[in-house]
Amino acid sequence: MVSVASVQQLLTPAFTVDIQKVENNARRMIERCQALGVQLRPHMKTHKTLECADIMTGGSRRCIVVSTLAEAHFYADRGFDDILYAYPLPFDKVDVCAELVECLEMFHVLIDSEAALAELTKRQLKDGKSWLVWLKVDCSNGRVGVRPEDPAALILAKSIADCKGVELAGVYAHCGNSYQATGVKEIQAVAQETTTATLGFMEKLEKADVRCPRCSIGSTPTCSHPIPDMARLNELHPGNYIFYDVQQMMIGSCQMDDIAVRVLTRVIGQYPQRNQLLVDCGWTALSLHSLGMLPTGYAIIDGHPDLKLVGMTQEHGKIEPTSGKLDFDKFPLGSLISLIPYHVSALVWQCANSCYSKKVLLPTQEGDCTLDLLIGYS
Amino acid sequence: MVSVASVQQLLTPAFTVDIQKVENNARRMIERCQALGVQLRPHMKTHKTLECADIMTGGSRRCIVVSTLAEAHFYADRGFDDILYAYPLPFDKVDVCAELVECLEMFHVLIDSEAALAELTKRQLKDGKSWLVWLKVDCSNGRVGVRPEDPAALILAKSIADCKGVELAGVYAHCGNSYQATGVKEIQAVAQETTTATLGFMEKLEKADVRCPRCSIGSTPTCSHPIPDMARLNELHPGNYIFYDVQQMMIGSCQMDDIAVRVLTRVIGQYPQRNQLLVDCGWTALSLHSLGMLPTGYAIIDGHPDLKLVGMTQEHGKIEPTSGKLDFDKFPLGSLISLIPYHVSALVWQCANSCYSKKVLLPTQEGDCTLDLLIGYS
Repeated sequence: MVSVASVQQLLTPAFTVDIQKVENNARRMIERCQALGVQLRPHMKTHKTLECADIMTGGSRRCIVVSTLAEAHFYADRGFDDILYAYPLPFDKVDVCAELVECLEMFHVLIDSEAALAELTKRQLKDGKSWLVWLKVDCSNGRVGVRPEDPAALILAKSIADCKGVELAGVYAHCGNSYQATGVKEIQAVAQETTTATLGFMEKLEKADVRCPRCSIGSTPTCSHPIPDMARLNELHPGNYIFYDVQQMMIGSCQMDDIAVRVLTRVIGQYPQRNQLLVDCGWTALSLHSLGMLPTGYAIIDGHPDLKLVGMTQEHGKIEPTSGKLDFDKFPLGSLISLIPYHVSALVWQCANSCYSKKVLLPTQEGDCTLDLLIGYS
Repeated sequence: MVSVASVQQLLTPAFTVDIQKVENNARRMIERCQALGVQLRPHMKTHKTLECADIMTGGSRRCIVVSTLAEAHFYADRGFDDILYAYPLPFDKVDVCAELVECLEMFHVLIDSEAALAELTKRQLKDGKSWLVWLKVDCSNGRVGVRPEDPAALILAKSIADCKGVELAGVYAHCGNSYQATGVKEIQAVAQETTTATLGFMEKLEKADVRCPRCSIGSTPTCSHPIPDMARLNELHPGNYIFYDVQQMMIGSCQMDDIAVRVLTRVIGQYPQRNQLLVDCGWTALSLHSLGMLPTGYAIIDGHPDLKLVGMTQEHGKIEPTSGKLDFDKFPLGSLISLIPYHVSALVWQCANSCYSKKVLLPTQEGDCTLDLLIGYS
């Protein structure tokens, strides 16, 4: 744990996390799952940190989802287990997956084709272990998966269940189409569609005597506003909810006050002739994910609804007023500005990228800004 | 040096560099500068590697530009010197800059305001050293700098030159507006405008008896197509030219054949019902910089002008034909596809981010694909 006397001491740009909000977001998701009677299997891909993984799993270090093998190794090396690698089995990394199966109690992989199943079975596992395989179904998300109404889905499930050295561990669906929703009603329509399709497929498996112990669906919008039928599922696997962001707020997953992250940036230039400030936050610090999505440009500027971030290059950002003349005296060179990011996964990934080496923990309280966890990348 | 028997062995997504093209691109820029009689001060921010820095400086490890202090430290720690930190002096990092000045023979900083000069002078340097300060002028680029025709520019230059403990080391302009050009004629118009404005300001300094030893302008488009007047400058500081990319090709800086980089990706899904392939390259591997810029989506697909990369999420990419039905037999699961990136700085930064720890060198030749330098990030 590293402490700073003041937020003013932070080198910028800095990615900051309000740990109290993180804990609230995590607790509410745990409570939602408890109320439904389903297992929470939180996704790590948004934060990629040990601290948030502990908070999301309530300290159990069990039952998580990852989307890369780098994440899998990161968590496996730190005592996590029951890890689901929710990514279509990459044929170049079957050996890496096998090693994880061999060293963990439970390392699950995911497939959506007979070819992938064949690829798995080419690699025999040590110690009589079996591959734990989830079948990915595509319930209108349109990315990975077999459509559950496609006869091929049932055939593939049977193939997995009947295959020597392989166990059908579950059925997995991602409600990524909930990201096109606006408002709770639309989010819950996607939740209902995905739940109904997944449960329908589970019934089909049961009728065909294909043993499958569980099904899991997830996305932050749907899991933030669960519908009653989700109680009939076995697991939920949201991820972004640990931080939330402006995109989630616009979808309707959360309120502005739930967003736990900020990017702190400093004024590095004043240009009255073009009515602009320059700040030390470019696309390396914030990503371009917000392009065209916000009336205030690439982010929301905390406490300054009259400002917008109109342009970014690699390490520079341009801020100007939404209208009228900027009061430059309010923003001297070196002063801090706080940005609320559009898509947090993009920027955590950017700063935490390899080895999480730049992350430090800040147990400091600074005025009304609780700043506990910081990932700096300046 | 790590060698692989075959490109097929590489884990994907993988960022690959054709070192022969890198050497050609570097050699031509060196020759251009020699023909003009100006010093080349290559920019490191595109590649951020030791290998390319050696190639660009011809092994001298002297006279480079960086845009972050992380880059400055990276190169300083490896024996580089005469490093220009071409970024508006950040007030939170004056101490870090001072330490670099104290440990290097020449570490230059850049300012465009009296306030920044005042900030510098608050920090006394050890061993009687002086701050080497470049004045940034804005020759119609509209980002950092004082407009050279603004009387404040001359006043600031005088302040720097007259300031105790500070030396006016040079005048610096970035022709970033050349990125709005299309074709050599438009590029050269920007080159002419920037050169004329910079030289005009240097004359003004001379007339006012303000001693300033040099001026430098740069951008890959203008330095790839220099105009005769650039011979009257002292330095050029391009950077992207070491790799080039689709954006540079569209501007007119280079030919397709000069682009030294590819992102290798593998097919991880086949979806005939929506006429799409899924590949293991999402925005973590390629960035979103190409959004809306290319008729082929987020990249050009090498050797397949009939394909486009239509969508990306964190680790997934969707490829479909520009028209008609896709021949799925041509792209089996696990097969490699090579992407030519739109903006290489974005993705090198993404994969090389911290500590360059994932970079390996490949001295391998694979068929007609020379693959020598690889930065892998899977």
